[in-house]
Amino acid sequence: MKSSNVDLGARSYPIISGGGLLRNGFDMSPFVSGRDCLIVSNETIAPLYLDQVRACLADKRIETIELPDGERYKTVATMQSILDKLVAIGANRDTTIVALGGGVVGDIAGFAAACYMRGVAFVQVPTTLLAQVDSSVGGKTGVNHEKGKNLIGAFHQPRAVIIDVDTLRTLPNRELKAGIAEVIKYGAIADDSFFAWLEDNMDALLALDTDALLYAIRVSCRIKAEVVAEDEREAGRRAILNYGHTFGHAIEHCQGYGDWLHGEAVAAGMIMAAKLSGLDEDTIDRLTRLVHRAGLPVDPPAAGAARLLAAMGLDKKVADKKLRFVLLENLGDAYVTSDYDEARLDAVLAVAE
Amino acid sequence: MKSSNVDLGARSYPIISGGGLLRNGFDMSPFVSGRDCLIVSNETIAPLYLDQVRACLADKRIETIELPDGERYKTVATMQSILDKLVAIGANRDTTIVALGGGVVGDIAGFAAACYMRGVAFVQVPTTLLAQVDSSVGGKTGVNHEKGKNLIGAFHQPRAVIIDVDTLRTLPNRELKAGIAEVIKYGAIADDSFFAWLEDNMDALLALDTDALLYAIRVSCRIKAEVVAEDEREAGRRAILNYGHTFGHAIEHCQGYGDWLHGEAVAAGMIMAAKLSGLDEDTIDRLTRLVHRAGLPVDPPAAGAARLLAAMGLDKKVADKKLRFVLLENLGDAYVTSDYDEARLDAVLAVAE
Repeated sequence: MKSSNVDLGARSYPIISGGGLLRNGFDMSPFVSGRDCLIVSNETIAPLYLDQVRACLADKRIETIELPDGERYKTVATMQSILDKLVAIGANRDTTIVALGGGVVGDIAGFAAACYMRGVAFVQVPTTLLAQVDSSVGGKTGVNHEKGKNLIGAFHQPRAVIIDVDTLRTLPNRELKAGIAEVIKYGAIADDSFFAWLEDNMDALLALDTDALLYAIRVSCRIKAEVVAEDEREAGRRAILNYGHTFGHAIEHCQGYGDWLHGEAVAAGMIMAAKLSGLDEDTIDRLTRLVHRAGLPVDPPAAGAARLLAAMGLDKKVADKKLRFVLLENLGDAYVTSDYDEARLDAVLAVAE
Repeated sequence: MKSSNVDLGARSYPIISGGGLLRNGFDMSPFVSGRDCLIVSNETIAPLYLDQVRACLADKRIETIELPDGERYKTVATMQSILDKLVAIGANRDTTIVALGGGVVGDIAGFAAACYMRGVAFVQVPTTLLAQVDSSVGGKTGVNHEKGKNLIGAFHQPRAVIIDVDTLRTLPNRELKAGIAEVIKYGAIADDSFFAWLEDNMDALLALDTDALLYAIRVSCRIKAEVVAEDEREAGRRAILNYGHTFGHAIEHCQGYGDWLHGEAVAAGMIMAAKLSGLDEDTIDRLTRLVHRAGLPVDPPAAGAARLLAAMGLDKKVADKKLRFVLLENLGDAYVTSDYDEARLDAVLAVAE
């Protein structure tokens, strides 16, 4: 077990990672302020891990709620069902919400925690690779609007992120790969030696090698924590974490959330963004090969250039209606800009025709 | 026109007060970050002041939304209608929401601002006395749950609070009085000389004397700003602002929101809390007389002691299921405690039988 820190002053919190944490009853009670917990999980994850998490909170009064599984339930209505449950159990400001599941569960439960009585504590127990390396860290919570992803939400930091890498053994292989997309992203935007490590160790990751997974998760979380500590509310540099996401969100939007997994859309989006960056062919090839070896799509779906562009018009990374992109100076070095080559954008989008 | 400050570091903002600000086209554009504004108002206030506020934002692109009028519309559904509007107009992170109306409009619009893209700027233009002295200052935003008031919300500070005292000339007299309840509260919890000033100037306030109103609003806002600056998220001392509100919320809840105005419930609640404080008869009499002179109720409705108590069980000011009250050491000196006289509480609630 190792612990690292997200350094945010009074809102700092640990990221604790290891193998077998849940099975071995890792004591989560230090992160629960009062006596009452509401564990928020979903119909898929609860049968697998709910009893283990209960045992990790042995001295607490525990209530549970199971959400339906899937991105299409990441809505205000589902969030409201958590709020209704909190009211029904008479939860007060000292109640702690424990989010047990993937990114959807964490995002909805975290947003409910942000809104109930204007904010109660919550703990993230992510069970997908994507949630472990990305969505559980950094305090972004929220739900989708029918017209756009994550349009409704809050910045609300958890009290702790508890990552048991063993939960990845029950994760569908397709979702493991989708998580690897975000891992590749960290190498691409901030650490070229990590990118090279991924080129050497992709097979170990895909084979669920515990040491390889823990290393990849810890490096990813370290990078994310550093960026978040520098710019908690995404006024500037934090936007580099959205590398591949402007295209990725557009792909997801055009496909209807759920047809492509978020990580799959980001994978194709990263390659589109690399091309828009004007990187040399060799570098684009390295990225494309790594994405391909992870079993992820290297091209967008045939959604049509115009539809993708329209979908980007509503993207959060738009300042005064002008598109902003995260581009790469090189592998390991990302920047945010509104100054991009229009012709190159057209060429990138033409692949979607 | 005068300006004072709510001192919250990077989130500091001015409270600007005066007569005729809206009519004279006070320039609000310094508080609007981008070019786009959404003015949120309601069907009662919009016909009176919307055109004036438009003129105060002459160089901006302005969209508007009118909410139905009334506390019963302070719901997630109404908040969602604002979010839908923001999506429909393609609002981005630089869009500023301007809340024009009373506390309900400000609370809903502020909560929508807190949630849209995880937080956009908003400006409060309160048009009721209650909103001017209380709800527009301090960043509490939110909506009601059918089982409890303000159970869903966020702390989200405005960029500015712009108070035009002339708007009180179109305020129904009953609502003016309800606002005076909160003004009396500031004297009771934090400033005995202001309490004495109110005893001398209640007639002037009720007669809408501009100087008296501006003085009362400025002292009230100064007290609120000081308390909020010390404890933005109500971890401790800020709770004194809830003086009279534990009883008051219970009264509102038992009556169904809207039958009693918030300020009316707080008025009766303040006297109940003074009695629970064990203040001497003379002091309780002074408070009761001042509340009565303001035309406010001095006793709770006959809701029944048991129902009021049950309603308090869900109140936000409950730590680990034990009731907490704001009590008075004396006029001008409030404290928060869970250590109260049970027999006295029974006696206070017996008035509601």
